[in-house]
Formats: sequence, structure tokens, C-alpha cells
Amino acid sequence: MPQLSKDSPLLAIDLGGTKIATGIVSQQGEIVSQEYVPTLPEEGPDAVISRMLLSIDSVVKKTDLPRSTFSRIAIAAAGAIDSDRGIVTHSPNLPGWEQVRLRQMIEEATGLQTLLINDASAAALGEHWRGIGKGVDDLIYITVSTGIGGGIILGGKLYTGASGSAGEIGHMTIDVDGPHCSCGNTGCLEVMASGRAIARKAQQLITEGARSAIVELVEGTTENVTAKVVAEAAQNGDAVASRIILEAATYLGAGMVNLVNIFNPDMIIVGGGMSKMGDMLLGPARQVVAERAFQLPAQRVRIVPSRLGDSAALLGAVAFALGLA
Amino acid sequence: MPQLSKDSPLLAIDLGGTKIATGIVSQQGEIVSQEYVPTLPEEGPDAVISRMLLSIDSVVKKTDLPRSTFSRIAIAAAGAIDSDRGIVTHSPNLPGWEQVRLRQMIEEATGLQTLLINDASAAALGEHWRGIGKGVDDLIYITVSTGIGGGIILGGKLYTGASGSAGEIGHMTIDVDGPHCSCGNTGCLEVMASGRAIARKAQQLITEGARSAIVELVEGTTENVTAKVVAEAAQNGDAVASRIILEAATYLGAGMVNLVNIFNPDMIIVGGGMSKMGDMLLGPARQVVAERAFQLPAQRVRIVPSRLGDSAALLGAVAFALGLA
Repeated sequence: MPQLSKDSPLLAIDLGGTKIATGIVSQQGEIVSQEYVPTLPEEGPDAVISRMLLSIDSVVKKTDLPRSTFSRIAIAAAGAIDSDRGIVTHSPNLPGWEQVRLRQMIEEATGLQTLLINDASAAALGEHWRGIGKGVDDLIYITVSTGIGGGIILGGKLYTGASGSAGEIGHMTIDVDGPHCSCGNTGCLEVMASGRAIARKAQQLITEGARSAIVELVEGTTENVTAKVVAEAAQNGDAVASRIILEAATYLGAGMVNLVNIFNPDMIIVGGGMSKMGDMLLGPARQVVAERAFQLPAQRVRIVPSRLGDSAALLGAVAFALGLA
Repeated sequence: MPQLSKDSPLLAIDLGGTKIATGIVSQQGEIVSQEYVPTLPEEGPDAVISRMLLSIDSVVKKTDLPRSTFSRIAIAAAGAIDSDRGIVTHSPNLPGWEQVRLRQMIEEATGLQTLLINDASAAALGEHWRGIGKGVDDLIYITVSTGIGGGIILGGKLYTGASGSAGEIGHMTIDVDGPHCSCGNTGCLEVMASGRAIARKAQQLITEGARSAIVELVEGTTENVTAKVVAEAAQNGDAVASRIILEAATYLGAGMVNLVNIFNPDMIIVGGGMSKMGDMLLGPARQVVAERAFQLPAQRVRIVPSRLGDSAALLGAVAFALGLA
């Protein structure tokens, strides 16, 4: 890698299934500026990559800095990422992304050195570098949103496994005879406790005739039920919604018990959209860990919400590009 | 630690719930001599420690070497071990062992520097040092015997977690609504796939009236059914026994899927008494991993039986005492 001038900021992109966040981030981890555009993944990789490039132009133009100031672009992307080769090998939330040479394409279009990392790994790194996990050697980051992903920091370093795919915490079976998961396995944590699982359960109960404030919140259109709506109803005291959230939180706790018994981590950080529920989700999960995990590691682990929220992956991608992983 | 003379062998002890193995091991990992005595754990810690000391005397006497030749004793012990403080904090297979200062007691009795490590961690280290895992950076060792334990090597180093208790692979829930486990959790891999689980299932089916060669093998005494007997019946083609083993192997495979998706390891090594079944156990487990785990890590991982068998923990304790962890 060419040397980085000490003060030059980096360009950073967080490519998700819903939105693309593009920012300018200092080497100290301050987000100088940031903007969002929708991903519109259904338009395919080329259209999405064009939008990424336009977004880069846009954030650069808003600064007074010449483009040459930025010597690197750090990208966090959803899906199975081959960081060494800079390839998005596959991405459930980005249809059509199979073996996309994203690093090369961005480098050729911008002339800037580009690095690519999985978004959940990046978020783990971000929280370790500048978030709640600062100074914590062994931590697991879980992102609970539409799906469930994870990133693992062990001994202060990102752990990515023998071929770079480690951390698929959402695809740990906790119910071997449970429902089918999109990954081909059964009873994965993702199919039991994700935002999609919460929405599906609510839709099912409503279809079966359950009386719930959820129905009014979606004006009777069951297909419009999302986890966010269920959380809102639960916060307002709706019994059906509360039970659904409690069930998902209990499953999340069961997944955490496994992580606590296997990794004995200092900290489990929960990010992603669902984590905005706070103690409504984390309270029951913590209780399951206290009741079911081995005592020594259960007493050690702190289960906390993400501090950086949506910026965790952006910052972590920068940490990765700076070689801090 | 005092310097170790280059050629001096070590004394090594593997303290299990059934037997104590004591050996003399060279710094190159050759077992010079070895002997076994029964643990008889029901007699309590003091009696067991006396037997360990007698066993040390016995193996030393059989050599021509003066006692001063051995500068270190390496102990692998079943249970929750605090290696830093040399304490057996708790051990399900060694009743009465609570906060036993084993290292100090052995050091005071022998005058030799003593090191203490959990037996499954030691076995992982042993296979990494001198067994099938030599040169393999990221590996998981699973011991499947009466219970299920584990040891984790990541980046070529033993991973023990924030407070030294990592690797409790047997206490990963794979069936959240499953049977109660002795650890207080439900549906743990151990309660689904261990030797104890196999024996219990066979006893249950026989009590319910299943016709099986198992009954003759135990001469009609259902309480005498062990996993070994079930394996023997299965090897002889007994349908009931075969089904029980297949079910346990399938659960073991489900546990491995979790490890493959989370760790993306190069290798999973299966040791312990049950591993002697070989492909009868590992074949179905491998198939579950191929069918259910993510493709990239599933293609990467090799699932293999232990090469060192009963000696893995003894050798691993020596590797630990030599600072090779």
C-alpha cells in the first residue's frame, strides 16, 4: 500500500441493501461529512456502482479539498466479501451481485486505492476503534436488522477465519427442528429473532385473528407490518406485540448464550435497526444469558447497544483501510 | 519461569473422571513412558491427588533418570480450570473439586514447577503441536465422550477468552426447546449428541419395548447400556442402534454447522471415546455440514478424527508447559 499522508482524510462508503452512506472520515475517525442515497438494488450492480461513484463526487464537491487529497476509499458492503481480492462474492440483499470485482471497478473509475470489507466485520471494527468497544480485546458485534450478521474481534484483532467468511452469527442453529432459513439451514438465529422474523410472526398472528394495535398502525394492511411497527405497538403497551418482541429477544438471548459459552467474550455489542428498541430487546436477552450461560463467562460479558449506530460500518471500513484491523 | 534445560523431559498428567494418565514426555513431544491408574473420583480431591503423586513416583522410578531431571509437571484436567492461578474451579466429572489449588499442592509435594490447563484445550494444543492439526492455523477440537468439550486454536494460538473459559462447545444450544442439560441450559449439543445422550436414548427405546441386539449385549440389564454397547450393536447392523447413532451424528453435524459458519475453521478434529466409531459418526456429520453450512467455509473445513487419541491432552499439556500455546 502506498504511504498515506498523515493528515489526509479517507472516503468511506457503507453499501447496504437499502441505502448507500458515503462520507469523508479523518484518520482519527471523525466523520467530516456524510450523505445518503438509496441503493435501489433491484436495478443491478452497474446502476448501484454508478450511484456510489456519483455519491463520491457529491461529497468531494461539498468540501474545499481537491480530489487528490483522498488517497484511499474504504468500502463496507453487505454480503460475502473476499477482502483479499476485493470481490463481492454473493450478497442476499444485493440481487445479482455474484463475483462482482467492486474494488477494481471503483479503483478504475476514481484512480484511488480502494479497500473492501464485509459490513458487519466493519461495524465490529468501528465499535472497537471509536465506539463502545474501545480498549476491549475480545468482543462480538451482532447486527440485528432485517437479517442478523456479526463481526468478531479477538485479541484486539478482527477475526475472519480461514477463508475470510467467519462471523455468520445469524446462521447459527438454535432450533434444529425449527423453520427453514434462506441460507438452507433450519432454525438459524436469523429466522428466529431478526426483524423479518418479528414481522412474519406478527403477520401470522394477525391473519389468525389476534387483536392488536399493530392492525391500526398499518391501517389494516397486514403486508405492511414491519418489525418497526411491532416495536412501536409494543412500546405503546400492546400485548400481542410485546409478546412477539419478548420471544425474539429470548431467542436472541439463546444465541448469545452460545457465544458466551464458546467465546467467553468481554462484550457483546448489539447494533442494527432492531437495537434501537434498547432494553425492550436487550433486557430479556441479558436475562437469558444470566440464567443459561456458564456463570464465569456470563458474569464477565457486558451486553450493550452499539454506540456508533449507523456510522459503525463506515468508521470500521476506515479502520480497515488504515490497517488498524 | 526458570529456564528449561534443553534436553530435560517433562512429567505430564491427564486427570480425567475415569482414569489418570501419567507420562514422561520429551520436549519434542515423544512419550517416553506412560501409565494409567483409576481416578476413583468419589473418594474426593485429596485421595485423587495422592494417587497422582504416587503415579508420578511410579513413572519416575521406572526410568534411570534422577528426579531432578524433570523440571516441570504439566497437568491437563477435566473441568473449569483457572490456568493463571492453577486452580480447578469446578469439575462436573470430579465431584467435590471446587476451587482446588491443584498447582500449588503438586508443587509443594514434588518441588517441581507445575502448570495446569483444561483437558480439551490441552487436546486441541496436542493435535496442533504433534497431531493431525500440525501446521493448521484455525482449528476446533471437539471431544465427544460421556460429555462434549472443546478447544479452540485461532491464528495458531490457543484461544481461551476473556476469563479463560472459552471453548464450551458442548454447551451450545442447538434445540432451544430441547431437553434440559446438566449445565442448566436446554438442548445443548452435549445433551443431544454425547455418549450419555446415546445411552439414555437406547435405554428409553428399550424400556418402551424396542427390539434390539443391545438387549442381549447387556444381558437384559438396561441400566448397563452404554454408548459403547450401542456402537457395537450398530456396527453389527442392529437397526435401532444404527438409528440412535445416526441421530446423534446428525446433531453433532448441526453443532459443526454452527462452528463452520461462525469460525470458518480449516479443520474440526473429533476426539474422545465416541470418535472411535470413525465414519459411522463422522460420515453423517460431514454430510450435514455439506448440506447446511455456508458453501465457502463448508468447502474449506476438513472434519477429521483425532490422530493422537488418548495422548492428545497429555502432549498438549506439555506444549502448554513449554510455552508453545
